[in-house]
Amino acid sequence: MSKYEPVSAEVVAALQTALGAEYVRTDAETLEKYKTDEETDPRYHHLPEVVVWPGSTEEVAAVMKIANQYNVPVTPRSAGTSVSCGAIPVYGGIVLLLERMDKIEELNTEGMYMVVEAGARTVEIQEKANAAGFLYAGDPCSADSCLIGGNIATNAGGNKAVRYGTTRDQVYAIEAVTPTGDIVNVGARLKKKSTGYCLEQLIMGSEGTLGIITKATLKLLPLCPYKLDLLAIFTDLDKAVGLVPNLIKAGLNPTSVEFMDNAFVRSSSDYCELKLPHYEDGFYVIVTVETFNEDELESKMEQLDEICSASGATDVLEADDRVWKLRRNCLESTRVLSLVSTSDDLVVPVDQIANCIRHLTKVAENYSFKLFTLAHAGDGNLHFQILKGEMSDEQWEDEVSRFHAEAYPYVYSLGGRLSGEHGIGAKKVEAMEKYTEPVEMKMMKEIKRALDPKNILNPGKVFNA
Amino acid sequence: MSKYEPVSAEVVAALQTALGAEYVRTDAETLEKYKTDEETDPRYHHLPEVVVWPGSTEEVAAVMKIANQYNVPVTPRSAGTSVSCGAIPVYGGIVLLLERMDKIEELNTEGMYMVVEAGARTVEIQEKANAAGFLYAGDPCSADSCLIGGNIATNAGGNKAVRYGTTRDQVYAIEAVTPTGDIVNVGARLKKKSTGYCLEQLIMGSEGTLGIITKATLKLLPLCPYKLDLLAIFTDLDKAVGLVPNLIKAGLNPTSVEFMDNAFVRSSSDYCELKLPHYEDGFYVIVTVETFNEDELESKMEQLDEICSASGATDVLEADDRVWKLRRNCLESTRVLSLVSTSDDLVVPVDQIANCIRHLTKVAENYSFKLFTLAHAGDGNLHFQILKGEMSDEQWEDEVSRFHAEAYPYVYSLGGRLSGEHGIGAKKVEAMEKYTEPVEMKMMKEIKRALDPKNILNPGKVFNA
Repeated sequence: MSKYEPVSAEVVAALQTALGAEYVRTDAETLEKYKTDEETDPRYHHLPEVVVWPGSTEEVAAVMKIANQYNVPVTPRSAGTSVSCGAIPVYGGIVLLLERMDKIEELNTEGMYMVVEAGARTVEIQEKANAAGFLYAGDPCSADSCLIGGNIATNAGGNKAVRYGTTRDQVYAIEAVTPTGDIVNVGARLKKKSTGYCLEQLIMGSEGTLGIITKATLKLLPLCPYKLDLLAIFTDLDKAVGLVPNLIKAGLNPTSVEFMDNAFVRSSSDYCELKLPHYEDGFYVIVTVETFNEDELESKMEQLDEICSASGATDVLEADDRVWKLRRNCLESTRVLSLVSTSDDLVVPVDQIANCIRHLTKVAENYSFKLFTLAHAGDGNLHFQILKGEMSDEQWEDEVSRFHAEAYPYVYSLGGRLSGEHGIGAKKVEAMEKYTEPVEMKMMKEIKRALDPKNILNPGKVFNA
Repeated sequence: MSKYEPVSAEVVAALQTALGAEYVRTDAETLEKYKTDEETDPRYHHLPEVVVWPGSTEEVAAVMKIANQYNVPVTPRSAGTSVSCGAIPVYGGIVLLLERMDKIEELNTEGMYMVVEAGARTVEIQEKANAAGFLYAGDPCSADSCLIGGNIATNAGGNKAVRYGTTRDQVYAIEAVTPTGDIVNVGARLKKKSTGYCLEQLIMGSEGTLGIITKATLKLLPLCPYKLDLLAIFTDLDKAVGLVPNLIKAGLNPTSVEFMDNAFVRSSSDYCELKLPHYEDGFYVIVTVETFNEDELESKMEQLDEICSASGATDVLEADDRVWKLRRNCLESTRVLSLVSTSDDLVVPVDQIANCIRHLTKVAENYSFKLFTLAHAGDGNLHFQILKGEMSDEQWEDEVSRFHAEAYPYVYSLGGRLSGEHGIGAKKVEAMEKYTEPVEMKMMKEIKRALDPKNILNPGKVFNA
């Protein structure tokens, strides 16, 4: 069915000439390794035909020129932490790894920016910024293992997005290789710009379909020296999530607002052997506030306490490491309960998150699976963990797809979208085609065709180009 | 030379059928009126062939369909406050006015957003938000007269961009009519989104070349009740502009940081008949800080005072209305000195603004004109006012173009760009073509061609499509 050519010996030879033989591999073990990312369901796996490790932007460009010449698809891959099959080579061809390009090239304290290669680890960027007294505000939950290029390509979200926005808000400029193999620099280290099209925001978040990001200039922010973590416990779902707009309206500017439903409170408490108040009936909301001076922290602490109480919190505690331990172990804790599960990533307007959680929790009662809910509540981003438990494969597939068929249109009816931070990847392409407005979809496809006429770069992702 | 067809009687009839006869005008007086925007130099003026006032998004779409059918160019026009010939119909054809679509459709306090039509006045949006206890943070200097559609199309900057960003940062979603006459909704009222291409940021700032914005969902922010304006006076240019990075690094998060050079201090003081300290030798920096509580304001005031002194300020005064009067009357004050002048809008990285002002001030000494400098210093945005004085037309043209030929490459060498907030319009197209990286320019043109194959929408703007 593929309109692509197979990776011939000639293609491999051309890649070897461009990159050096040791950075071009076709052995079975390597191909096997790169048939998937975090996706465990073998139905989604696809073997690449060759895996390459370019060492420079010029070499990435050379790979794209070869791919265009021989009509072979290219799937760029960062750390492979995608949970939406974003790094799977669905049409085979070339998997292109950025991990050799891992340098942090510059940290400029005067200009408050860093220049990093796409393969630099996010955690190292964060640590290097902190050591210099600055904050790099991108903070996906996979920060320890993921690479910055993938963060930018998927517009990764994470823990600090309430205050600082998502990855696309942390980037001044990118260097990218276009689908046809040119090198381009878009964006600029500027706070303002009305000089042509905003190509940087178009390429960022396009999940590697409009360009391979090879380098980025990242924003650094002043580091807040004062920090407070608070745990507000509610015994009522509505009140728990109703806290969010009250925090925002008060101008508290929280860094994060994390929500755990009681199912997760119980499972994670059991897993961690750690009981905090209202284990039996509590919904937990963790709020982090950071400030530049102690007085400000003090006054925000008081304000926060008042708002939590006024919002109907049963208990308000200063959150210590134990709370974050519960939060961090949520997903792990469900693996004890069910070997197979699926996680979903939906986003709705912040003021609709209570409605959304309540409604979908109720909808889920008509199904046999168990639904656990986590939310980056401060930015309207929901993660459902759906447990298969003991049900058959057929029932599981049927139930999950029927649940999605109820949940997705509902999320859209609230003004929401299919993905808040994980991306569409290959996994949600059908849903994307189904729920996106036809004119919007047409524009996306026209742009893709204009920039990648042979559909060489990361085909089968985001939509069917 | 034009590849377009003239606006025939048939085209006018089709427009009249679509909009009603009273909203389609071809009389000489109307055409004369819309041959220019704020541009006073007749060499840039172009008469339209017909002017239309659609009353709805559907009517805007109908105009675009007719224009495509008959191969007639369309120039959308907001309030016509462009200073870069952005609203001039350089190829004749249709001028399309959005001013009938002026409704503020919704202000939602729970969701903290407003839905407005493109023709709503920016000042009315600001006032309505304030009255409800919120801030709409877009604040171009022309806010009293401009319309929101034009702000979004040009990504207008203004006074609050240091803290809140430019117009594109204030917008959740837009409704637009595509160059081929479809209606599309892009973006969403979400804090996070990894669901397809970021088309909203592509259309915003494209100066009406990729779509006519007809409606927008704007972000509202909590309104800061406490505010402080400070005037820091320096007798040294370097020190004056060196204040900016110190403010940013300290986490003071100022709302605005405005710089006036001594030429402007003098001319505006003379014009306003108002003398503040160091009239003879002072560089003025006005800093505005806003907070949510009094203690925070107090502590920031102290911090600000310290930073100004440590940065070498000669005087630090609380700024009253007189200071803002001087700032507001800068441009007016130069009209007394020279009937003809030209203003420029350049942007550089914030930490380069001192270098840039110093260097270009020095460069200007080799010319006969006088150069006055204003800056939205907190975001690296410079406005030069160049006075013609008594020189001949030939000398004036020659000097300005030679100065630009020195200034523009220098600004690019600092990582800057041609426009921080005014846009490229028709006036800077040649410079845009000259200074933009070829691959970036190629991508812009490919996208334009993909979305507007007949180049119907606002041709001759941003670049030569």
